[in-house]
Amino acid sequence: MQRFWVKSRSFKYSVNVGSGAWRALADFPQDRYSAIFILTERNLWQRWGEKLLREGNVKRARPVFVPPGENSKSLMRVEEVGAELLEKGADRRSLLVALGGGMIGDLGGFVASTYMRGIDCVQVPTTVLAQVDSAIGGKTAVNVGAMKNLLGTFYPPRMVLAEPMVLASLDERPFRSGFFEVAKHAILSGPGLFKELEAKAAELLPQRARELGDILARAARVKVQVVSRDEREAGLRRILNLGHTFGHALEEATGYRRFLHGEAVGWGILIVSRLAELLGVLEPTEGARIARLLRQLGPLPTLHGLRARQVLELLPQDKKAVRGRIHWVIPERIGRVRISDQVPLNLVETAFRDLQRSEAQE
Amino acid sequence: MQRFWVKSRSFKYSVNVGSGAWRALADFPQDRYSAIFILTERNLWQRWGEKLLREGNVKRARPVFVPPGENSKSLMRVEEVGAELLEKGADRRSLLVALGGGMIGDLGGFVASTYMRGIDCVQVPTTVLAQVDSAIGGKTAVNVGAMKNLLGTFYPPRMVLAEPMVLASLDERPFRSGFFEVAKHAILSGPGLFKELEAKAAELLPQRARELGDILARAARVKVQVVSRDEREAGLRRILNLGHTFGHALEEATGYRRFLHGEAVGWGILIVSRLAELLGVLEPTEGARIARLLRQLGPLPTLHGLRARQVLELLPQDKKAVRGRIHWVIPERIGRVRISDQVPLNLVETAFRDLQRSEAQE
Repeated sequence: MQRFWVKSRSFKYSVNVGSGAWRALADFPQDRYSAIFILTERNLWQRWGEKLLREGNVKRARPVFVPPGENSKSLMRVEEVGAELLEKGADRRSLLVALGGGMIGDLGGFVASTYMRGIDCVQVPTTVLAQVDSAIGGKTAVNVGAMKNLLGTFYPPRMVLAEPMVLASLDERPFRSGFFEVAKHAILSGPGLFKELEAKAAELLPQRARELGDILARAARVKVQVVSRDEREAGLRRILNLGHTFGHALEEATGYRRFLHGEAVGWGILIVSRLAELLGVLEPTEGARIARLLRQLGPLPTLHGLRARQVLELLPQDKKAVRGRIHWVIPERIGRVRISDQVPLNLVETAFRDLQRSEAQE
Repeated sequence: MQRFWVKSRSFKYSVNVGSGAWRALADFPQDRYSAIFILTERNLWQRWGEKLLREGNVKRARPVFVPPGENSKSLMRVEEVGAELLEKGADRRSLLVALGGGMIGDLGGFVASTYMRGIDCVQVPTTVLAQVDSAIGGKTAVNVGAMKNLLGTFYPPRMVLAEPMVLASLDERPFRSGFFEVAKHAILSGPGLFKELEAKAAELLPQRARELGDILARAARVKVQVVSRDEREAGLRRILNLGHTFGHALEEATGYRRFLHGEAVGWGILIVSRLAELLGVLEPTEGARIARLLRQLGPLPTLHGLRARQVLELLPQDKKAVRGRIHWVIPERIGRVRISDQVPLNLVETAFRDLQRSEAQE
C-alpha cells in the first residue's frame, strides 16, 4: 500500500492506494465524529460492507443506499439523501463515507459539502476510474438534465482509500474502461508509468486486480501531484482534461449509451494525439505508440455512423470553455502536454475523419 | 454610505451600506466577467432593475427570475436556475448578482457556489434582515422539505451592496420585522447601537427608510466583525444565533405562518433574556430594557395557544446542535452574551410560560 498526501486549501489529506488501503481508516480519528454514515449501493454494501468495517476498525456505521446508475447523480437524490441523513440523526459532526464508483463519489462529495453547510467526507472508491482519478482532488458534482456535472463544489475529502481487491467484482468492460484514464495519467506523467502500462496491458483483468496496486498507485500519484498544485483548476489542473474535451462530446452525441466514460476518453486521447500530429507538435512515432497502447487496453466501441459535425457541435457546451473558447490539451510527447485555445475546428474534424477512416481499414 | 471589509478565507470583500451603496458596483471589476446575470423576483426587477444598472454602471446584465416566497429556496429551483443560466450562456467566468431579500440571497449564493463548481456572486439585499445580516458572511442555503437550510455552503460574496432606498417599497410589517435582527446586533455589540435604536424606534417606517443608513450600517458592522473573525462558525459566529434557537422552534411550531422570521427572533430574544434572568446572569433592569425596546419595535404576533412542550420538542432539530446538545446564546448584559449548553429544558419552559403570562396580562 502506498500513501500520498494532497495539500488542500486548509488541510492535507492522505490518498492510500494498494492492498490493505482500507486499514488506513483504522488510524483515522473516527472518535471525533458523532456518527458515521456510508453512502453506497446496496450490492456494494452486501459484498464489501462488512470487510470495510472490519479492516477499517469502524465500530458503528449506518449505510445510506442510492440506486446504481448515473441517474442517481441528481439534486433530487441529494435531497433524498439529505432527508435520510437528517432522519437518521446526522449532525454537523457526522462523517460521510462514500463507498462506490464515480457516481457515488461525486454524489457523496456533493452531499457532504452541502449537508448542514459541510460535513467531513472519506472517499472509498471501488472502480479503476474512481481510484486513480475522480475520488482524488475534491471535485464533486451532480447532473442537471442532460448537462453532466453542471452543479458541484470543490470539497476535499479527509482521506481516500483505494483498495484494488474491490475491482475484482467489476465486469471486464468497465474494468478495462478505467485503464484509459490510467493511460491519460501515463501520457501526462512520462515514460515510466507509460512503459509499465505497456508491459501489463495484457494482464489487466478483474481477476488479477490484487496485483495492480503498484500501477494504480502510480496513476493515482499523477492526480495527487496535479491537484496539490492547483486544487481549484486555475491552470495546471486543466491538463487532466486530456482526452476529455472530445470524450465528453462523444458521450453526449451517443446519448451516453455507446461508450463508457473511460472508452470515450480513450477516443478523446486518440483524437488529440492525431490533432497534435496534424499540428506538427507530436512526433508520429510517439503518436503511434500512444495509439498502440490504447488498442492494447481493450477494444473501443466503434465511431461508425457518427457525423463529425454532430460531435463538434457539442464541444462548446463543455463547461470548461471560458468565453466560448475551447481549451484543448494537446500531447507534445509522452510526458508533456500543452493547452491551446487556438485549434481550428476544421482540424478537429479532419482528425476525427482520420480516426474513422483508420478504424474502417482495420 | 459606509464601507466595511470582511476578511474571508481567500479574499476580502466590501460591505457597502447606506445611500448610494449601489454606486460601489461601478468600481467593481465587471470587465473581468464574461457575462452578468441578476437573480431576482420580477417585481423587484421592475421596480429597481433599471436603477441598479444605472447607479452600478452595469452595461449588460440579464435577469433570471424566481417566484417570490420561501418555496423558491429549494433544490428544484436551484436546478431550474442552473439550467436557465446554462441556456443563457453563463460560464465559469460569469457573475451572479442576487437582488432580493433573504430567500434570493440564500438561493443565489447557493447557485453561485455550485454552478460549474462556483462562480462569483454579488449580494444586493433588499430587506432589512438581508441588509444587516443574511447577505453578509457567505452562508447560503436551501430548504429540504420542512427542514430549513438543511443544505447549504459557506461561499463568501465578492461584494455586498445595501441601499436603504429599496426598503421604502416594503410593507410596514416585514419592514419592522427586520429591526428585531437589528436589536439582536445591538444586544451583541453594546450600548451605542442599542441607544440609537431606542431613540429611533418610533421612526422606523418604510417611508423614512432613506434616513436609516447610519443605523443599518452600524448593525451590519456587527455582523462584519463577527464573520471576519469566524467565517465558518467554529465558535464566535454562534453568538449570532441569539434569539434564533427558540425563534426557529416557534416558526416551526406555527408552520411558518404566524410569525415573520424577525418576529420569531424577537420572541426568541425575549425568551433568552428571561432565561438569563432566571439563571441569575442578567440584571432584571437590563432585561426590562431589552423587553421595552422590543415592544417599541412593533407588535409581536401572540404566543397564545402555543403549548410550551410542543415548541420545546422542536428545539433539538436545530441543526447547530452538536451531539444533540443545544447551545443557547444568553445575554449577560447589553453588549455581552455567553454560550451555554447547560440550560435545563424545564427552565426554558418556565421562561416561555412567563412570557405567555405577561402577554396575557397586558
